Amino acid sequence: MDQDIKSSKHIDISQEIRDDFYQVLYGRRDVRGQFLPDEIPDEVLTNILHAAHHAPSVGLSQPWNFILIRDNEQRKRIYDAFVEANDEAAQMFEGGRRSHYQSLKLQGILDTPLNVCITCDRERGGPVVLGKTHQAEMDLYSTVCAVQNFWLAARAENIGVGWVSIIQKEKLTELLELPENIVPVAYLCVGYVSEFLKKPELELAQWEKRLQLEELIYADKWGRKK
Amino acid sequence: MDQDIKSSKHIDISQEIRDDFYQVLYGRRDVRGQFLPDEIPDEVLTNILHAAHHAPSVGLSQPWNFILIRDNEQRKRIYDAFVEANDEAAQMFEGGRRSHYQSLKLQGILDTPLNVCITCDRERGGPVVLGKTHQAEMDLYSTVCAVQNFWLAARAENIGVGWVSIIQKEKLTELLELPENIVPVAYLCVGYVSEFLKKPELELAQWEKRLQLEELIYADKWGRKK
Repeated sequence: MDQDIKSSKHIDISQEIRDDFYQVLYGRRDVRGQFLPDEIPDEVLTNILHAAHHAPSVGLSQPWNFILIRDNEQRKRIYDAFVEANDEAAQMFEGGRRSHYQSLKLQGILDTPLNVCITCDRERGGPVVLGKTHQAEMDLYSTVCAVQNFWLAARAENIGVGWVSIIQKEKLTELLELPENIVPVAYLCVGYVSEFLKKPELELAQWEKRLQLEELIYADKWGRKK
Repeated sequence: MDQDIKSSKHIDISQEIRDDFYQVLYGRRDVRGQFLPDEIPDEVLTNILHAAHHAPSVGLSQPWNFILIRDNEQRKRIYDAFVEANDEAAQMFEGGRRSHYQSLKLQGILDTPLNVCITCDRERGGPVVLGKTHQAEMDLYSTVCAVQNFWLAARAENIGVGWVSIIQKEKLTELLELPENIVPVAYLCVGYVSEFLKKPELELAQWEKRLQLEELIYADKWGRKK
């Protein structure tokens, strides 16, 4: 009887649906080198944006905007800003690590038909937002939740996404003409792909290794093994 | 022929899998009031943590840790820190908005069998991390991607999650004994639920409204309607 009550409350999502969900989640990649120039149909893009817009947000403030960048001149200016930052970044690595860094393809700004900048309005919802009173960065974090929803929904639509963070935020702010209260949280390259890699590209390129999950888990406080 | 080639590249995720994915994504809620005390089986929790650990991270740095808080005394101390912050927060709202705020249930710290703090190690990956050279906050953003993966995977497992942000980070740092380089990004209440609400609780409570997606979309730069 207890088991029945428990079941009726918990079986909302079936094992089959769960398996399908995990197939999307584990199939998501940060795409840089496999983009195709194929246009994304409007209804597909709308599905992805709708999913992003239904991310959780602090006090339901929905602090995000979506700037869809297709203009070639605009993308070339942003690409130039990437190149400038990337050259600076390479100099921060030493020896073999530098040449390895320089061999990696780290963006697809001009390879995709669409770039998307997801921004955060630091003033959305007014001066006092429920849940933001003691952690002011919650609006930025909410925007990242929208980015992750966007990313996963894109994968569900068989579309690849790459997050370009090697770029000065001030430069993005200038080129996208963002007002003072608007922070560019994520600059995304979005497009169909020739393939989704089996593992993260930086793992395949032996840049970094997957950490062991068990080593990242503590009980009740920092450092106490469960 | 072209269509065939295109299809073979794009049909990885079928419409059925996509529909199942969206069912999880749109069924996710920020849960506060519907928690049950039922224990979460270890294998289910492992599924959720595994999904979080496979979030994207800057330079594959995987800057997250997961502190599983079950100890009652520890949770009571954290609950007290919430109450203190929440009383302060209520004073920031005026008139009817204040009494409305005070009527809302905003956490389930003691109602669930498990709380999880997801942290960010600002030093993970060493002094120079690929992709973090020009945007230092990328490790925090990566950790939020792990939070959103955790949240969605929990929903897929029919488990509710509520993010408690009405608490001083300094207090969390003290109670969880976090080292200086560790930031508590998300404090989550995690448990089975009596129901998942049809819409966000703050929308049902008429605290905030869903914004129109179309009004949040711009083309090529800020403010230009597409």
